[in-house]
Amino acid sequence: MQQYDVIVIGGGPGGLAAAYPLASAGKKVLVVERDLWGGTCPNYGCDPKKMLYSAVQAKTYAARMTKAGLNGIPDINWPKLMAFKRAYTRTVPSGTRSGVTGAGMVAVDGEARFIDEHTIAVGEDLYEGQDIIIATGVQPVLPDIKGRELIATSRDFLDMDHLPQHIAFIGAGYVSMELANIAAAAGAEVDVIMHGDRALRGFPAAAVDALQKAMQNEHIHFHENIELKRVDETPQGTLRLQADGFTLDVQRVFAAMGRRPDEQLHLNRAHVKTTARGIVVNEFLETTTPHIYAIGDVAATSQPKLTPVAGFDGRYVAEHLLGSAAPIAYPAIPTTVYGSLEISKVGVSPETAAGDDRYVVNSEDVTHWYTYNRTQETFASVTVVEEKATNLIVGATVVSSSAESLVNLLTMAINTKTPADQVQRMVFAYPSEASDMDYLL
Amino acid sequence: MQQYDVIVIGGGPGGLAAAYPLASAGKKVLVVERDLWGGTCPNYGCDPKKMLYSAVQAKTYAARMTKAGLNGIPDINWPKLMAFKRAYTRTVPSGTRSGVTGAGMVAVDGEARFIDEHTIAVGEDLYEGQDIIIATGVQPVLPDIKGRELIATSRDFLDMDHLPQHIAFIGAGYVSMELANIAAAAGAEVDVIMHGDRALRGFPAAAVDALQKAMQNEHIHFHENIELKRVDETPQGTLRLQADGFTLDVQRVFAAMGRRPDEQLHLNRAHVKTTARGIVVNEFLETTTPHIYAIGDVAATSQPKLTPVAGFDGRYVAEHLLGSAAPIAYPAIPTTVYGSLEISKVGVSPETAAGDDRYVVNSEDVTHWYTYNRTQETFASVTVVEEKATNLIVGATVVSSSAESLVNLLTMAINTKTPADQVQRMVFAYPSEASDMDYLL
Repeated sequence: MQQYDVIVIGGGPGGLAAAYPLASAGKKVLVVERDLWGGTCPNYGCDPKKMLYSAVQAKTYAARMTKAGLNGIPDINWPKLMAFKRAYTRTVPSGTRSGVTGAGMVAVDGEARFIDEHTIAVGEDLYEGQDIIIATGVQPVLPDIKGRELIATSRDFLDMDHLPQHIAFIGAGYVSMELANIAAAAGAEVDVIMHGDRALRGFPAAAVDALQKAMQNEHIHFHENIELKRVDETPQGTLRLQADGFTLDVQRVFAAMGRRPDEQLHLNRAHVKTTARGIVVNEFLETTTPHIYAIGDVAATSQPKLTPVAGFDGRYVAEHLLGSAAPIAYPAIPTTVYGSLEISKVGVSPETAAGDDRYVVNSEDVTHWYTYNRTQETFASVTVVEEKATNLIVGATVVSSSAESLVNLLTMAINTKTPADQVQRMVFAYPSEASDMDYLL
Repeated sequence: MQQYDVIVIGGGPGGLAAAYPLASAGKKVLVVERDLWGGTCPNYGCDPKKMLYSAVQAKTYAARMTKAGLNGIPDINWPKLMAFKRAYTRTVPSGTRSGVTGAGMVAVDGEARFIDEHTIAVGEDLYEGQDIIIATGVQPVLPDIKGRELIATSRDFLDMDHLPQHIAFIGAGYVSMELANIAAAAGAEVDVIMHGDRALRGFPAAAVDALQKAMQNEHIHFHENIELKRVDETPQGTLRLQADGFTLDVQRVFAAMGRRPDEQLHLNRAHVKTTARGIVVNEFLETTTPHIYAIGDVAATSQPKLTPVAGFDGRYVAEHLLGSAAPIAYPAIPTTVYGSLEISKVGVSPETAAGDDRYVVNSEDVTHWYTYNRTQETFASVTVVEEKATNLIVGATVVSSSAESLVNLLTMAINTKTPADQVQRMVFAYPSEASDMDYLL
């Protein structure tokens, strides 16, 4: 049996963020990966998604500007776009794995399962770890209906050789919404099948309404309150989705209904407890077994399941194992949905603030402001939440084709505890989204 | 003779930034404008320039992405672009003027000239002011050569009905460089005539080299060390530029060789002293005559001549006149050149820092990083200057097609005195320019 100071299960952004500093500090580290080294984000998550989104951004910017000085809208060529993506993704697993071994760690390929509180097995081999970090992420959830084997996932979408003519997405969370935008911009007919009547739960309703309207203008169809019953292959080779009083034939169907923690780990043998939300952890990211940690998407923290959160968790656990005694303290963390409009949010939501008189909410439809008229935005809004007593910026929600960058700026204002009037006195590149802050605080 | 608490000469961004808070505070305010209300920036400066730049951005993004999933590059249609710009600019003067009068101020159209230290004349009318703020900006400088009447200015460029086939720019400062980029992207053949051998003095040489190379790839020709002698109209109706051993025929020629303060004010009658750089002011923006202030481009401060600086000056003088005793303290102020590549810089320059061991310079060619590969940048670099003793970020220079937004973020880091390691622990939208900061500090 090989013995290690730390075993990291999962070679994705979370696990590696923990592994590298531990190895640098002289710990003997083993990293186990059962699939692609690098994990979801660079292989079939945020990185390839945002590469496809580049084509959408470039096309939609050009399309908007046809009202303002441009002639001609470029087309998205799916095979070419996929070649662009694959040129990036194909080197990720080998590059990541050799990074791990090059840093003096041991890399093992295979599915890890717990044997006891200090031992894992990968195939026939046993490994003992003084500390163990679980960073296995989450898996997409497929609906439990007849024909579920016909339903594909976001991972499949991000690696399609050809763009189907007509696509359905089951679910209206951020993955569905982002991929629906990409598919529609690339020329597919797109239907989004919603279980309820609200897309993007957790995002402010006004922002979501704006995005859905923009998507409808791109001919994306939303079907609300559909309790999907079955998916069948038709004699014509299409897929038929059926619910009470609802039938839809498409070429392909993707489910993006949320994701759940991996269930192959035999966590019970290590007395690691889980809930439906993931592995239970305390404020040190320790599981119910003290020397076993869970980080990133698999951990049931209150944080959004995002790559940089996994990285933050990983770096935290490394520091903790190297002697830091402080509990984890998350900064304000932005979340962005990339689409024909971006929605980006951070901190206290407008809806929370509206019901709490400690806060003041400044919300502006900025569509016709110079900054957004300049780029011919179809819709843009900026909402900033301030704490009355301190004048501190504590939250923001931005909708525009470039919401991400303004929210990154406001995230820094929040995390540096900079009062609104101090931000107003700063000088930014002019005219820009940032220089508008003077009028938005 | 009409009497006022404050007379503001110049209804541009600087003058109005002073005028509004003074009027709000109950002061009797007169604003004099001899040309277009709103001043240079919104009428024939940064605002219309950046609207034309939108078309360039959209076109060049699409063009870059033809290597990565897009087919087809849109064309810039100049008359359509001009219609877009004019739809914005045509309402600026009337809207600005009615804003002034609507706020209870008196607006006077005409050229102001000093009669004595408290009196100005506009035409036949005399106005007495307890305090006077000079915010008249600067005028473009035309070369003093034969045929100078054939040379047009940036103001003319920004309002051309049709795009000439072949354009020359005299000078390689930021105005020339920006307009040359726009003209080339719109389809003109472009030559830039440089007096010396260095474009964009005041910007880091490596960044300027990258921009010039990008412009050369767009078929913009640079001619260095040309001592222009004359401009003549040819029988064919073109303009011929001549220097020793140099002849160039173009349809139109624009000079953007810098700008100088206005000379119509009869400042000597008010004992207001000037230098070649503008009106001499102290740390309260007072001129050599204490109750007369100069702000914005016309003031000989050490700050860049930028709209938001004029606004900062204006707000400062208003606060000063309303009782604040503090001298002006400028924050770190970013400067951006918008082109096929943007160069944006703030704070301590890499060149200054290289010769000073208090600083450490982190400079990365990020062209092939995920973030810039995603948008197919032709070149991108990020340089951050940190102060060794404090770990504070004190300067940055970014070259990319979206340098502005990253420099705005770093400007906030500088102005909030946030140490680099604290920025590294923040979580930004991922993957984004901001999330890369972890690797760039």
